Amino acid sequence: MLGAGLLAIALSSVDGLPKTLDTLLTTVIAVVAVVFFAEYLVRLWAAPESGHFASLSDGMARLRWALSANGLIGLLAVFPVVAITFGSMHANHEAAPVFCLFWILKLSIHAPAMSTLARVIANERATLASVVIIFIMILVSAATIAHMLERESQPKTFGNIPEALWWAVVTLTTTGYGDVVPQTVGGRMVGSVVMVSGILVLALMTGILATGFAEEERRREYLRVWDQVTRVPMFAELGTVTLSEIVGKLRVRHYPPRIVVVRRDEPGDSMFFISEGEVEVRLPHGAVALSQGGFFGEMALLDRLPRSATVVTTQPTTLLVLYASDFYEVAANIPSLVEAVEREARRRRAENRGEAAKVETS
Amino acid sequence: MLGAGLLAIALSSVDGLPKTLDTLLTTVIAVVAVVFFAEYLVRLWAAPESGHFASLSDGMARLRWALSANGLIGLLAVFPVVAITFGSMHANHEAAPVFCLFWILKLSIHAPAMSTLARVIANERATLASVVIIFIMILVSAATIAHMLERESQPKTFGNIPEALWWAVVTLTTTGYGDVVPQTVGGRMVGSVVMVSGILVLALMTGILATGFAEEERRREYLRVWDQVTRVPMFAELGTVTLSEIVGKLRVRHYPPRIVVVRRDEPGDSMFFISEGEVEVRLPHGAVALSQGGFFGEMALLDRLPRSATVVTTQPTTLLVLYASDFYEVAANIPSLVEAVEREARRRRAENRGEAAKVETS
Amino acid sequence: MLGAGLLAIALSSVDGLPKTLDTLLTTVIAVVAVVFFAEYLVRLWAAPESGHFASLSDGMARLRWALSANGLIGLLAVFPVVAITFGSMHANHEAAPVFCLFWILKLSIHAPAMSTLARVIANERATLASVVIIFIMILVSAATIAHMLERESQPKTFGNIPEALWWAVVTLTTTGYGDVVPQTVGGRMVGSVVMVSGILVLALMTGILATGFAEEERRREYLRVWDQVTRVPMFAELGTVTLSEIVGKLRVRHYPPRIVVVRRDEPGDSMFFISEGEVEVRLPHGAVALSQGGFFGEMALLDRLPRSATVVTTQPTTLLVLYASDFYEVAANIPSLVEAVEREARRRRAENRGEAAKVETS
Amino acid sequence: MLGAGLLAIALSSVDGLPKTLDTLLTTVIAVVAVVFFAEYLVRLWAAPESGHFASLSDGMARLRWALSANGLIGLLAVFPVVAITFGSMHANHEAAPVFCLFWILKLSIHAPAMSTLARVIANERATLASVVIIFIMILVSAATIAHMLERESQPKTFGNIPEALWWAVVTLTTTGYGDVVPQTVGGRMVGSVVMVSGILVLALMTGILATGFAEEERRREYLRVWDQVTRVPMFAELGTVTLSEIVGKLRVRHYPPRIVVVRRDEPGDSMFFISEGEVEVRLPHGAVALSQGGFFGEMALLDRLPRSATVVTTQPTTLLVLYASDFYEVAANIPSLVEAVEREARRRRAENRGEAAKVETS
Repeated sequence: MLGAGLLAIALSSVDGLPKTLDTLLTTVIAVVAVVFFAEYLVRLWAAPESGHFASLSDGMARLRWALSANGLIGLLAVFPVVAITFGSMHANHEAAPVFCLFWILKLSIHAPAMSTLARVIANERATLASVVIIFIMILVSAATIAHMLERESQPKTFGNIPEALWWAVVTLTTTGYGDVVPQTVGGRMVGSVVMVSGILVLALMTGILATGFAEEERRREYLRVWDQVTRVPMFAELGTVTLSEIVGKLRVRHYPPRIVVVRRDEPGDSMFFISEGEVEVRLPHGAVALSQGGFFGEMALLDRLPRSATVVTTQPTTLLVLYASDFYEVAANIPSLVEAVEREARRRRAENRGEAAKVETS
Repeated sequence: MLGAGLLAIALSSVDGLPKTLDTLLTTVIAVVAVVFFAEYLVRLWAAPESGHFASLSDGMARLRWALSANGLIGLLAVFPVVAITFGSMHANHEAAPVFCLFWILKLSIHAPAMSTLARVIANERATLASVVIIFIMILVSAATIAHMLERESQPKTFGNIPEALWWAVVTLTTTGYGDVVPQTVGGRMVGSVVMVSGILVLALMTGILATGFAEEERRREYLRVWDQVTRVPMFAELGTVTLSEIVGKLRVRHYPPRIVVVRRDEPGDSMFFISEGEVEVRLPHGAVALSQGGFFGEMALLDRLPRSATVVTTQPTTLLVLYASDFYEVAANIPSLVEAVEREARRRRAENRGEAAKVETS
Repeated sequence: MLGAGLLAIALSSVDGLPKTLDTLLTTVIAVVAVVFFAEYLVRLWAAPESGHFASLSDGMARLRWALSANGLIGLLAVFPVVAITFGSMHANHEAAPVFCLFWILKLSIHAPAMSTLARVIANERATLASVVIIFIMILVSAATIAHMLERESQPKTFGNIPEALWWAVVTLTTTGYGDVVPQTVGGRMVGSVVMVSGILVLALMTGILATGFAEEERRREYLRVWDQVTRVPMFAELGTVTLSEIVGKLRVRHYPPRIVVVRRDEPGDSMFFISEGEVEVRLPHGAVALSQGGFFGEMALLDRLPRSATVVTTQPTTLLVLYASDFYEVAANIPSLVEAVEREARRRRAENRGEAAKVETS
Repeated sequence: MLGAGLLAIALSSVDGLPKTLDTLLTTVIAVVAVVFFAEYLVRLWAAPESGHFASLSDGMARLRWALSANGLIGLLAVFPVVAITFGSMHANHEAAPVFCLFWILKLSIHAPAMSTLARVIANERATLASVVIIFIMILVSAATIAHMLERESQPKTFGNIPEALWWAVVTLTTTGYGDVVPQTVGGRMVGSVVMVSGILVLALMTGILATGFAEEERRREYLRVWDQVTRVPMFAELGTVTLSEIVGKLRVRHYPPRIVVVRRDEPGDSMFFISEGEVEVRLPHGAVALSQGGFFGEMALLDRLPRSATVVTTQPTTLLVLYASDFYEVAANIPSLVEAVEREARRRRAENRGEAAKVETS
């Protein structure tokens, strides 16, 4: 929907389109705007039920939603409808790119990592501010020196500091358009230093964001696992301290229905606990359903053999993954859990043999 | 102040400005320079009180400050005043970009990460020097080979090694202005190798700086937390060894006044200890002030429910954050701390229920 | 083979080649295609023996292989044979680049990291999707704003949003061709922001992929070591829990025959366990063969002296490496293992002294 | 020396130099070459004493050195002398850039990180090979598709696959010269994908190299510390297991003479152990020399106060640094060490108070 709207706006900015296509595009834009308007109204109405404002009255909840980031973005996205209704079609044509910007904001709702990113930036703001200051210091120094060195030979492009700043930005980010290039020996030396500094700034930026992002993601994943882990009775029995240890080792994976999680005869390096949904274990002698609280894939870890069955989700399913490398660490600390897994594995192995025998004798 | 001065210098370098604007800009530059002069005198005077030179007499302290990096930068920034006073206005116009450079140095005082960066570079200097040598080796080899291959077809741009070096720098940093481009098959192959080497050098640089920066930041944060942690009585009681364990898990966050730290009904993944300042906990039945040594947000961790109250700072406040993922690790090692937190949480829950009951019955 | 084929296709696309060379290239392409056809048939036939489809009948195994990624890629690579047989030579000439694409797919079989990469992307898909959305948001916003600012001064290159998008991509990835460059002050400011955003996106991407890749590689290495470690009797005796601890410290290295693993008189920082193959220890008084389950290099760790012998592989050999830094950690946790290593080292030292004495007295 | 030689070669490649300068440069090149020749002979002679070939006779040691990487590089660097002697001056002028390449090789001896880099590449060769294959796959596919899409509109630059490959390399490394730019919509889409892939490849490369480099550096640092730690009696007393724990926390720092290690009144976050050389502790009442085995800076850690004295090296000195964040971890595991540090600190504090009292009463 959003994609179609953005595409229509982008295309409608092309000049010399045939009349019919132009009309079509305007219609598409209008339809998308109307849909967004409807969506806005529905969401506004449903705000009290969203659970975010449990402690407020219906009216207050709606007001709070309207004033939240999501509400305001929704309202801005609706703005084109008003513009189309009250303005002429031509005005709309001119202003269309502006709607584009409002609609792009809607995309941000689909980017969960953006809040992580925002938190990383907030946490590391002191460090990032320093990098920005270093960045500006290099920029201004480079522009000033280049301006002094090049202003005589290239008065048009290095004639004043603002012009030279453009060159400095293009060079420091290693973009290098080539529209402004130093030509004196001194200017080229400054340019070389700026390029190398560009690499350093990039390396620094990467170092800060990468570390911060990894730490923040670890925290998020921990909470995601903690939310899911209580739904598996096996874990729920463990004490908080023991549990907190295993939570750090598990990973959450969401699967849509009818996805192959594990394929028969492939090597396996992980076992799975079902915290939501249901899977079907396709054994040679028939399929078995496993629901919330069940686990599978443990035999690949215990016996180091390829997977003995294909496992397919039958519903939207959330699994907790435990990788081999972590399994043995867990085994060292929580022997009771591993014993339970081994007991079940022994039962299944016996069952499989029995079934196989039955199939063969039949 | 500094920003205005830099902007004025940058703009005054543009030719053909109207007379009045030019005069205005010169005035701005002069005013900024005078302010810097005043600032320098005040700082010089106040040097003995700064606490950095506690063990010296007043005169010595001032001399030491004047000779320190900060003092020298301050003095350089003042230089324009002298130039304006003794020189003609025109001379100032020509030399203005130079002041720009002095003033930029002042920026470095606002970049705390710069000292971290300096330490990282000092610690990793052997490794970085090697990367620089590799960088130079690639540069000179590439320039030499490209010079040999291209000198006949492009005598102007590859005619001698210094010219070819410019191409090599532009290519190795993947800037790629495009002003000098190899045209023979051999030259292009060399160019391709240089570009790929550029990616490798960047990757290497990032690896070294990122690791070093992360390690140094961890050390700094540890010290920052250690400085704050002794202000919270709850932690001060712990032995050094136990304390050192929790210090590694805490994070310091500084907040200006009137900032929302925690918002009601939002999911929570951390608790906070107040090491400086004061916060206001906005409960439905009224606000409670929490001051130094207090903590909040523990219920979100213990009960895994959304925040039950909005918390706002009333003064500049320093908080120690403990994330959920670390809380349970701490719980495993320091049960006494968690017990204290749980006891307080129980008291608060009871109080909240009582207050809520009171509100309802009233 | 593949390389020759690709090279032939690439060269055959050059116009104005001499007739004979053209014919030669066509022949090379045809020969490569025929070889791929033969390879495909052999593999199809051998599918049941590959061990991947142990649980299926021969026909089914072949069908499964034909439908697997490898099978389909093999079939596509064979397609040119058909085209050459049924089509005219000229048509082949035109379509040759398409074969090129089919053949490149074959390369993917030789890239084991590609499956790791695929898993990393699958694991981090939520985060990566967010980065992609941020990327698109910046792209579209930048293109829209630049279009609005530049459309009057540069109607040809910024006249519509699709044109402006091209500029935005080139700038955001810091490629900077320079074919489209903003010229207004506003456009340049937008451009600067886009370039800096480009650095941020790159930093973010690196952070996500680097962390994910490191974690995934750790897991793979753990499994690789676990597969090898059971072949060394010394380790096989250890309990699962103790073993899992040492597995995390070992590294797997594969060596072809006749490679020097350790050179006499060089400083050593690691010891080696042989899990497959055989090595020859070249002592001054003759060579000793060490086979599966043996170990060497321990004296460099225990005595901190240079290597006392050169060690060369005599067959394709798989070694498990234990670095000094990890050796002492292992020593702290598994004293029995270190004792065994020390006992053997003492025996060898005595033997060496005896042999040396024998050599000297003889 | 090497720098002067390289500079002379670079400058001598510039055409139209004045005769005298040209003669000077040729002389410099000749002198540098002669010095390298002398150096080669000295090193060859001294090979047996270098300790690397302790187990060989003198002649054999010299032969082994001559055939080692260092020996061969030395020989190649000498080659110009021969060329100058036997060839005409003009020939030398033409061939000079080649000498340049030989001399650059000498630089590699000064890059210790190069061997670390080589080991990282060796360890990660499987993963890196995969990235290279992915790189090639993208390159060839992009070139082929762009060739098919653009060959009609730009026959000169996309007319055949080798030409298109040049464009692909320039784009994939995000260098972007701009000499070849796609113009069709399809070509631009391919170009966009290639640019984004370039970012991905860079991110991947960084991830692999950064992780590998960090791991390898950790191992090297461990060995460096282990070599130094035995010279400090305090550590030498500890058992291997306890020692291995502290080795992981220490860092080695080399200082030339007369360098300020710690400055009075500055905040301190680390303590130092002297493993080689000597330092002078400048207390207010006179200087104290500390030699091998001594330590200083512990009061800043124990009392959390600024440094109480300036410490300057008097000889080339090697220090082992223990940061505050690690000190407390060590304290938890090795109480005996911390007790010894605290006992000494108490003694010093008492001494300082005594001296200070003496100074005041005098």
